[in-house]
Amino acid sequence: MIPGAVHGTDELITNFASVNFLNLQRRADVMDCLVDATRQYGLGSGGTRVIQGITPAHVDMEQTVARYLNKEAAISFATGTVANIGFINAMAGTQQFMQGLAMVNRDVVFVYDRDAHWSLWKAAEGLKFGERLFSFQHNSVESLEEVLRKLRGKRVVVVFESVYSIDGTVAPMHELVDLCERYGALSYVDDANGFLVYGPPNRNFHVEYEGMLRATFIMVSMKKAVGLEGGLIAGPKDAIDSFELISGASSFTAGVLAPAAAGTAYITRLLAYEEPQIVDDYLAKVADFRSRLLDVELPITDTATCFTSVVVGDEAKCVELYNAYLEQGIRVPPYLYPAARRGGAVLRIILNAGHTEEQIEHFIEVSKNFRDQKML
Amino acid sequence: MIPGAVHGTDELITNFASVNFLNLQRRADVMDCLVDATRQYGLGSGGTRVIQGITPAHVDMEQTVARYLNKEAAISFATGTVANIGFINAMAGTQQFMQGLAMVNRDVVFVYDRDAHWSLWKAAEGLKFGERLFSFQHNSVESLEEVLRKLRGKRVVVVFESVYSIDGTVAPMHELVDLCERYGALSYVDDANGFLVYGPPNRNFHVEYEGMLRATFIMVSMKKAVGLEGGLIAGPKDAIDSFELISGASSFTAGVLAPAAAGTAYITRLLAYEEPQIVDDYLAKVADFRSRLLDVELPITDTATCFTSVVVGDEAKCVELYNAYLEQGIRVPPYLYPAARRGGAVLRIILNAGHTEEQIEHFIEVSKNFRDQKML
Repeated sequence: MIPGAVHGTDELITNFASVNFLNLQRRADVMDCLVDATRQYGLGSGGTRVIQGITPAHVDMEQTVARYLNKEAAISFATGTVANIGFINAMAGTQQFMQGLAMVNRDVVFVYDRDAHWSLWKAAEGLKFGERLFSFQHNSVESLEEVLRKLRGKRVVVVFESVYSIDGTVAPMHELVDLCERYGALSYVDDANGFLVYGPPNRNFHVEYEGMLRATFIMVSMKKAVGLEGGLIAGPKDAIDSFELISGASSFTAGVLAPAAAGTAYITRLLAYEEPQIVDDYLAKVADFRSRLLDVELPITDTATCFTSVVVGDEAKCVELYNAYLEQGIRVPPYLYPAARRGGAVLRIILNAGHTEEQIEHFIEVSKNFRDQKML
Repeated sequence: MIPGAVHGTDELITNFASVNFLNLQRRADVMDCLVDATRQYGLGSGGTRVIQGITPAHVDMEQTVARYLNKEAAISFATGTVANIGFINAMAGTQQFMQGLAMVNRDVVFVYDRDAHWSLWKAAEGLKFGERLFSFQHNSVESLEEVLRKLRGKRVVVVFESVYSIDGTVAPMHELVDLCERYGALSYVDDANGFLVYGPPNRNFHVEYEGMLRATFIMVSMKKAVGLEGGLIAGPKDAIDSFELISGASSFTAGVLAPAAAGTAYITRLLAYEEPQIVDDYLAKVADFRSRLLDVELPITDTATCFTSVVVGDEAKCVELYNAYLEQGIRVPPYLYPAARRGGAVLRIILNAGHTEEQIEHFIEVSKNFRDQKML
């Protein structure tokens, strides 16, 4: 069997794949918020943002998220991928809507962390590598400086992620932003995986997150901690306002559903200000889970994020393991190239706030057996 | 004011912009279906299709839509734009996941109708024009044949729309598909605007729609007649199944929300089999509306679709008119380049099944005044 989803099965499987790790929709207040917004606004946007406008729920979400990220403004898109496509389209394109109303960005070049997400590379597919698109070694400040030095005099946008979900690495945020500032480059951080999880002083990477807030633009996903759908870009008001027109994605593709917007605003306030304990408890649960995986000597990535992967390497073997876990009623998805590097296949394990002790115990037992049988 | 949405206003505006023209969420049964599915599945997908799997609601939707379009199978994406990006990624790319599992499409070339939607052009941005990407004159069978003749011997995918929503033109479906078959090319029809509206013998373009069903792939949007969100591609089962892996969009970006999937299945059955009268009534209302616009000599496009545009031409003037309508409490969005052709700006008017006689009368009165003042 090739890697892929199991569809339409009735079997109950313990899911270690869900990126919606806080499981918030099991809370009655969150579900009520979603249902109320559905009854009020419906589950269709009625069209694109530019054509149709947006609801008060969207305005509330964008202001709430911008405030949390300490940016002037924010704009939302149907998915994180669409947000990334919209950003690159806005920053790379030349657009003239009518006499005297144009945006000419044809000289802008982009410098990507080489491990940046597929959606970012997809968004830049029209830009010739080595001409308008460059890359630096993953999380390497030295490598970025080398590239920026060569690009001196050009208008540069540096693009990287905060938390990389395949290997659980975290960008050296202050150092990267320092460099961008020194070389006069704009910075765009994809914080899809970190949003609302990291940041406060009591959590890992507090310092890095302080650095992230200094980036010109921060992109976040509503699919992870929030557990809904959509992507959002926060930054300087002038730029964000202009994205409505020049991102293309705001003109030609559907916006976020109003109930998802209402839910995002609600959950952002909940996790950021009202009950941050939800995240603290989750991270403590992850730390405990990881130490139990290490106890049974599972070859897991060394990370302090909530994304733990079992390192397999060989791609076919990784798919075999995926199937072996599935036979034991456990879903841990294989990440092959291009999600992981060539020959760097992993099984990604995402603990869910809703996992029971029995489910966790079963996972560890099964993994231990695979380990004893030298399958891992 | 530049063209853009009015956000966060409390003023009530009569909306002739909504692409959700059948207004189905006002039906209690549809809303109950959405709310029930939200309570059952939540409003988050939990991750991408490949990683996370899909719900029974997705399976039901895909089977229902595939059956309606007379195709073997169908696969859904978060938006129509993501579906188009996924299709081109699948058909254009070279992908090797592991030893012995590869898809090599680097020699496939694409031939686009030049008026194809932004999302289709965006999806092909990485393909060099004149090398892997070609275009033919809008809806011109002769022009397509000329291009296909030159590409003989290559693997070709011809990409066009059924109903073009800016000028209300309809593709000569049988002739285009005939040509594709004669030259051994695959055909991909973006039916975002026609899905569930056109087709039955009593409606316009019945013959064209019979032709469309002959295309290799049909892409539809759940945003228009269905009024929800998402895009869907129907076609031969082998190809559709492979899209889960090779579209990229199924691996790296969120899927359709389960309640939108449940609603789409419900509405598709409603409009296709149970109450097709809903669409017949709407189309009769559109025909009546158009004849009243012609009575006051508005310069509207000559179309038998439900997409009527007021031809303005000059882009700045089009934006002025948009604002003038807005001051009268009416929203009719301006379409400039690249949505319309350069110098071919229009105001697009979409009648909604829920518009009252008073709202329609007001629109006609206002338009007549603009016409009398030579603004139109």
